[in-house]
Amino acid sequence: MINQVIELAERPDGQPSENNFRIKEIETPTTKDGEVLVQSKYISVDPYMRGRMRDEKSYMPPFEVNAPIQGGVVAEILESKSDNWREGDLVEGILSWQRIQTVRPELLRKVSPQVQPSSLALSTLGMTGLTAYFGLMDIGQPQKGETVVVSGAAGAVGGVVVQIAKIQGCRVVAIAGSDEKTTYLENELGADVALNYKTTTDMSEALKTACPEGVDVYFDNVGGEISDAVIPLINKFARIVLCGQIALYNETSIPHGPRVAPLLVKRSALMKGFIVTDYQNQIKEGVTALSGWYQQGLLKHQETVVEGFEKLPQAFLRLFTGEKLGKLVVQVN
Amino acid sequence: MINQVIELAERPDGQPSENNFRIKEIETPTTKDGEVLVQSKYISVDPYMRGRMRDEKSYMPPFEVNAPIQGGVVAEILESKSDNWREGDLVEGILSWQRIQTVRPELLRKVSPQVQPSSLALSTLGMTGLTAYFGLMDIGQPQKGETVVVSGAAGAVGGVVVQIAKIQGCRVVAIAGSDEKTTYLENELGADVALNYKTTTDMSEALKTACPEGVDVYFDNVGGEISDAVIPLINKFARIVLCGQIALYNETSIPHGPRVAPLLVKRSALMKGFIVTDYQNQIKEGVTALSGWYQQGLLKHQETVVEGFEKLPQAFLRLFTGEKLGKLVVQVN
Repeated sequence: MINQVIELAERPDGQPSENNFRIKEIETPTTKDGEVLVQSKYISVDPYMRGRMRDEKSYMPPFEVNAPIQGGVVAEILESKSDNWREGDLVEGILSWQRIQTVRPELLRKVSPQVQPSSLALSTLGMTGLTAYFGLMDIGQPQKGETVVVSGAAGAVGGVVVQIAKIQGCRVVAIAGSDEKTTYLENELGADVALNYKTTTDMSEALKTACPEGVDVYFDNVGGEISDAVIPLINKFARIVLCGQIALYNETSIPHGPRVAPLLVKRSALMKGFIVTDYQNQIKEGVTALSGWYQQGLLKHQETVVEGFEKLPQAFLRLFTGEKLGKLVVQVN
Repeated sequence: MINQVIELAERPDGQPSENNFRIKEIETPTTKDGEVLVQSKYISVDPYMRGRMRDEKSYMPPFEVNAPIQGGVVAEILESKSDNWREGDLVEGILSWQRIQTVRPELLRKVSPQVQPSSLALSTLGMTGLTAYFGLMDIGQPQKGETVVVSGAAGAVGGVVVQIAKIQGCRVVAIAGSDEKTTYLENELGADVALNYKTTTDMSEALKTACPEGVDVYFDNVGGEISDAVIPLINKFARIVLCGQIALYNETSIPHGPRVAPLLVKRSALMKGFIVTDYQNQIKEGVTALSGWYQQGLLKHQETVVEGFEKLPQAFLRLFTGEKLGKLVVQVN
């Protein structure tokens, strides 16, 4: 069986490219006592990983050059030298971009056989779903009848936020970057209004029309100019949930823009960043809520699946060009 | 007895000046049933009032041109046509800049005779003390051993924040604009380090040295470039309390600066604006805590008192030039 790994060949400067990655063949390691040998089934590509490519302090340590990229992986146990873990079990964890690897099972969560397809453990019922759930529910605290604006709304996190906000009884205004996406948001995910920021000439005006009672919660996946159009519309006691700032991830210096502090004072408003691991002690609560909505048909599954381990770098680069709907996952075959 | 009022003569464009105010003599009104007639003793000048001079929606309605300026006043009741209020009582409320006026007592709070001098009801035991208390305790949530940075630290709110943060067992780094103020902050108010931003050539470096373990709470009264030096030093889960943005109040267009959202995401940090009236249902809790510390000698009284009703416009203008220590109050005589 071929074993392959994808390493960080060099750190990107600005927009990443395929040159930043290196795929190579390696030996399959021997399973030591206490370890399991796993074969990757689905591998996740996520915007936050761009941050780990920089050599700077952040919420997770940076990737090392000439070492494997790491990210969310659903894998099957091929061999277990650990109690409580059995051959054939499906597991999920932050693992290397590698076809077959050994791992200490403390780093793994079991994926229930009810999660079908198992890639959902990386998306709606996994990291991105939990990101949407905790950010919206804990920081955003949406109340029935409030207006929730979501940027990057057709993305992996945004699509779940739109749906949870509708479940909470909110008016939802979704922002995305193509007519295909806005149609999907309005027709499939239930957004009240979806705006294509690429074709709308005056986003401020369009948002004012879409939010006649102002904005109570802004769930921001994007940052930059889209946020500059949304933030002036916030109401008293608004909550701005900062999930990602993908528009700014490839900047090489600190970007400038309109200062938000004066408006936050005027509106007694809150802005808070977070990462899903801040909620690691509440994962069970999140999974239970998401699974419940999913089983009731209130939460739709939305994934773009790319086939082929060797497509991982290309799939990662697609995150920054917006050419996808929902969660982007690579199926290893 | 002369009666006088100070009106808004015209809205300031940028930095306010004495031309924006008009002092004039008026008749003393007759007290109607249900009203009280009060004589102003101390009148407060506060930075937030600059916002009310603009013709735009904010947390309080704008002042009207050719109508009295309004702000915090401690007054004595000269005549009462309302039950429960007696001649000689001291009261506090948002009243007109006027020597003698009639008022409906629903708008008043009694000032306890134990509050000595009664101007404290406008400062440490009144609006600015409560602003410090709720902002720091509710939003900042300082924990023992954490590092708290305070900008505008020698101001009315800042000076109380410094002292409460010390009471909470924090390391306190205070920023102010003169050596007189930094000496006062270190020697009188107990700041661990006080930095004069006007003479410090590299604030970023000075702050790094003063905060070897990073910044957990930043209580910001100022905004602008000082915040730009503090914010990059925040720790994971830091809280940025936005109380005022005096550096930006006189701006005539939306100021630009480094975007903070990417860093808030990286550090899972919170930034929240507020105004003391957000806590109007908890005033008693705040006054009790502040009075307790004041009686124990843990909280020092710090006021700059200007004498003369007609000095109100000048006193207000001093807020923007920084030439004062603690709370600026005008004693009417």
